[in-house]
Amino acid sequence: MAKELKDLTKRADDYSQWYNELVIKADLAEQSPVRGCMVIKPYGYAIWEKMQQTLDKMFKETGVQNAYFPLLIPKSFLCREAEHVEGFAKECAVVTHYRLKNDPEGKGVVVDPEARLEEELIIRPTSETIIWGTYKNWIHSYRDLPLLINQWANVMRWEMRTRMFLRTAEFLWQEGHCAHATAEESEARTVQMINLYAAFAEKYMAMPVIKGVKSANERFAGALNTYTIEAMMQDGKALQAGTSHNLGQNFAKAFDVTFVNKENKPELVWANSWGVSTRLMGALIMTHSDDNGLVLPPHLAPIQVVIIPIYKNADQLAEISKHVEPIILKLKEMGISVKYDDAENRRPGFKFADYELKGVPVRLAIGARDIENGTVEVMRRDTLEKSEEKLEGIETKVRDLLEEIQANIYKKALAHRDSLTRTVDTYDEFKKEIEKGGFILAHWDGTEETELKIKEETKATLRCIPLDGDTTPGKCMVTGKPSKQRVIFARNY
Amino acid sequence: MAKELKDLTKRADDYSQWYNELVIKADLAEQSPVRGCMVIKPYGYAIWEKMQQTLDKMFKETGVQNAYFPLLIPKSFLCREAEHVEGFAKECAVVTHYRLKNDPEGKGVVVDPEARLEEELIIRPTSETIIWGTYKNWIHSYRDLPLLINQWANVMRWEMRTRMFLRTAEFLWQEGHCAHATAEESEARTVQMINLYAAFAEKYMAMPVIKGVKSANERFAGALNTYTIEAMMQDGKALQAGTSHNLGQNFAKAFDVTFVNKENKPELVWANSWGVSTRLMGALIMTHSDDNGLVLPPHLAPIQVVIIPIYKNADQLAEISKHVEPIILKLKEMGISVKYDDAENRRPGFKFADYELKGVPVRLAIGARDIENGTVEVMRRDTLEKSEEKLEGIETKVRDLLEEIQANIYKKALAHRDSLTRTVDTYDEFKKEIEKGGFILAHWDGTEETELKIKEETKATLRCIPLDGDTTPGKCMVTGKPSKQRVIFARNY
Repeated sequence: MAKELKDLTKRADDYSQWYNELVIKADLAEQSPVRGCMVIKPYGYAIWEKMQQTLDKMFKETGVQNAYFPLLIPKSFLCREAEHVEGFAKECAVVTHYRLKNDPEGKGVVVDPEARLEEELIIRPTSETIIWGTYKNWIHSYRDLPLLINQWANVMRWEMRTRMFLRTAEFLWQEGHCAHATAEESEARTVQMINLYAAFAEKYMAMPVIKGVKSANERFAGALNTYTIEAMMQDGKALQAGTSHNLGQNFAKAFDVTFVNKENKPELVWANSWGVSTRLMGALIMTHSDDNGLVLPPHLAPIQVVIIPIYKNADQLAEISKHVEPIILKLKEMGISVKYDDAENRRPGFKFADYELKGVPVRLAIGARDIENGTVEVMRRDTLEKSEEKLEGIETKVRDLLEEIQANIYKKALAHRDSLTRTVDTYDEFKKEIEKGGFILAHWDGTEETELKIKEETKATLRCIPLDGDTTPGKCMVTGKPSKQRVIFARNY
Repeated sequence: MAKELKDLTKRADDYSQWYNELVIKADLAEQSPVRGCMVIKPYGYAIWEKMQQTLDKMFKETGVQNAYFPLLIPKSFLCREAEHVEGFAKECAVVTHYRLKNDPEGKGVVVDPEARLEEELIIRPTSETIIWGTYKNWIHSYRDLPLLINQWANVMRWEMRTRMFLRTAEFLWQEGHCAHATAEESEARTVQMINLYAAFAEKYMAMPVIKGVKSANERFAGALNTYTIEAMMQDGKALQAGTSHNLGQNFAKAFDVTFVNKENKPELVWANSWGVSTRLMGALIMTHSDDNGLVLPPHLAPIQVVIIPIYKNADQLAEISKHVEPIILKLKEMGISVKYDDAENRRPGFKFADYELKGVPVRLAIGARDIENGTVEVMRRDTLEKSEEKLEGIETKVRDLLEEIQANIYKKALAHRDSLTRTVDTYDEFKKEIEKGGFILAHWDGTEETELKIKEETKATLRCIPLDGDTTPGKCMVTGKPSKQRVIFARNY
């Protein structure tokens, strides 16, 4: 393990390589034999489970219920909403047959041509179409609204270039699909969910995000408006971490979903959808981790504290364990997850390096002399600082330290983002600055033409029109035409 | 709702129709537009979530970790284990293309023939092949064993005849896949998991089950041995509720998974797999429910207690609510989920019928006169008995009543099973008895030939060779050949 750690590429040398190696070495995930699909390993999945549990609770507190809709979508459903099919048709896995058979020429097993489906089925790239096809039967009166549903599911988009967690053909996510009686209510829910995502990112992932609106060009296929949270990675690139879409009446129209209002008149239903995915794992890794490995926020770490005994013989181990047991109990009572690693086949040095690589926030090391002196060595993963503490009352110190680490890594990430966020006024300046990475705040004339020109010439995309930004008007840095407010450009994942 | 309830077919009239209607009317699930696939509605999904959470905790307590493997399996992987592909090839969904395109003839969207996959991909019917293909890279030494992994996932089997929850093309399940250094250890885990499933069925679902071994003919495709838990539904038909398979070294051989043992010699790894699915929802419904609707065991009911105020005006409601609030708080503190339904647009009678249909275990009804008298009407769903109780201290009474209901419905189901379990000694007697339903204990000569003859002539299948049954030897009821012990026959779901 110490060797593996030494092998980790440094961020400064090759950030992209560092990321790919870290995902593997920290046992988070690996490539599967299926093109573009990953295997999420137990340690990676444990982090995802913590994210899921937290988000699921937050959703339910706003009245959302979970349900489950089919994996497969009839081709005709996908095609009902014109922009939607345009957005997804080019990257979808298609089921055409429902049986294999023995090869008549004796070469193993082949697709049975007689088992061809009358209508092809698409593995869901997202579920608006199958869900709105179902809502038609669920919604009749204003009394049936709002309908607030979420599903945790796997989806598939046949991406050409994939990277573990960040962009995979299959990924895990949640997708919320709400139906409302009025445009105002639907818009309010759309905004409520982007705010919820921002709160989750900041409070649990310790990842600062900017809330904003996507340009028409970057909108979800079929949406009137897409809200986004944008995070900045350590290399200065942007990462879209969650989106919430106001779908207007587009899907209600496509699937003929109407309700009878209080005045007894039929009206089309208003829709929104919102989602985050295992992509958040990539964001988490790239926001905090360092050249020694993962740095996990205590609020999402599967193991928050590891305790490692330093001993020369069984008697010493027994003595240390006797003192450690009540500490473990107290930590667990406080709701802190703790691992006591007294395995004999790995030396302390190996264990230290391994838990650093895995990002465990706090490490306690206790030797025979510590027991004599009533002390313990405490190491915090975020700063790698060590200190000697009194064994008595160590539980509350650990609890406080976990909160301190959570706050500190957020502060650090925020300071990093701020240091890489600049305001520019001319396109020449922009071209220079964008090479250095980070968020660039600039005026834009609001046209797709200008947006695409900038993308083509600089590889920078319009990340969002910030919700909480400075709204002073100005002139577009490219065309000089009027601009309502500065928007954020960046190169992105 | 009262009308809908009245419309529920009686079990005695048409058990099958009663089941289908109940799934719909109780808002558990419905058919989707995709052949054989269902939509699990929020109320049904809430019950499944409770099952999941409970099982997940039980798995983790035995050292199992969750992970996630790809949805799609390369055809060549499925074909590596001969019996396995034979068992699943005839009912699998096949992905052949990865793109749609605009129809050159202008008729919407069609499969792009240029986007044909080199190798077809199968939607997992079960994941042994992709997982053992992965374990090859995870297992090198005896130190890597045992490997105890579970995944919660959707799977697909293209069944010709489907019924909601009981047999659907897509279903949700968990599949555990363990790797061990010795045959003994793997067998012990296989048995441990069938015991765990039996404990879950009995303790949480209040559903008695018989643990046993499947005959060779009913074994999982690729297993040496399949353990099962068999439950009996109210109509006397058997339902296989969970299975645990000892896979021997079959998959290790097929995927060349070896480990270096303590003597530094390479050995093939030993495997087992085990799973339960949303089929348990069907079992739960058919074990306890009655002509008034669902009967849910308190340990799995999303709403354990519903409180309904009976009022004539806003003042009365306010007065009742004031008295109910502290009760709700106390129930919640005890970990009891409670719903206070003070909705004004439905009359108490409608609410009563609705919560009966939904199987809420305990109903409290409180009117203005109850407040004066310090009383409350308590209704228990299992027996439909009503009683007047003192309002003071009602929380502990409710808590005790929930446990009483849990125990009572288990007892009732057990008595029903016992009443329909008979021992027969001749094939003539068997043919008569099997028509009445239930479990028939009979001697069998152990051959597939006799088993198939019985199935053909009586539609009864060999459910299992019971683990805890009478092991007195005897003579096969069909052939007169020696039999080691009685086995269980039944017609089944």
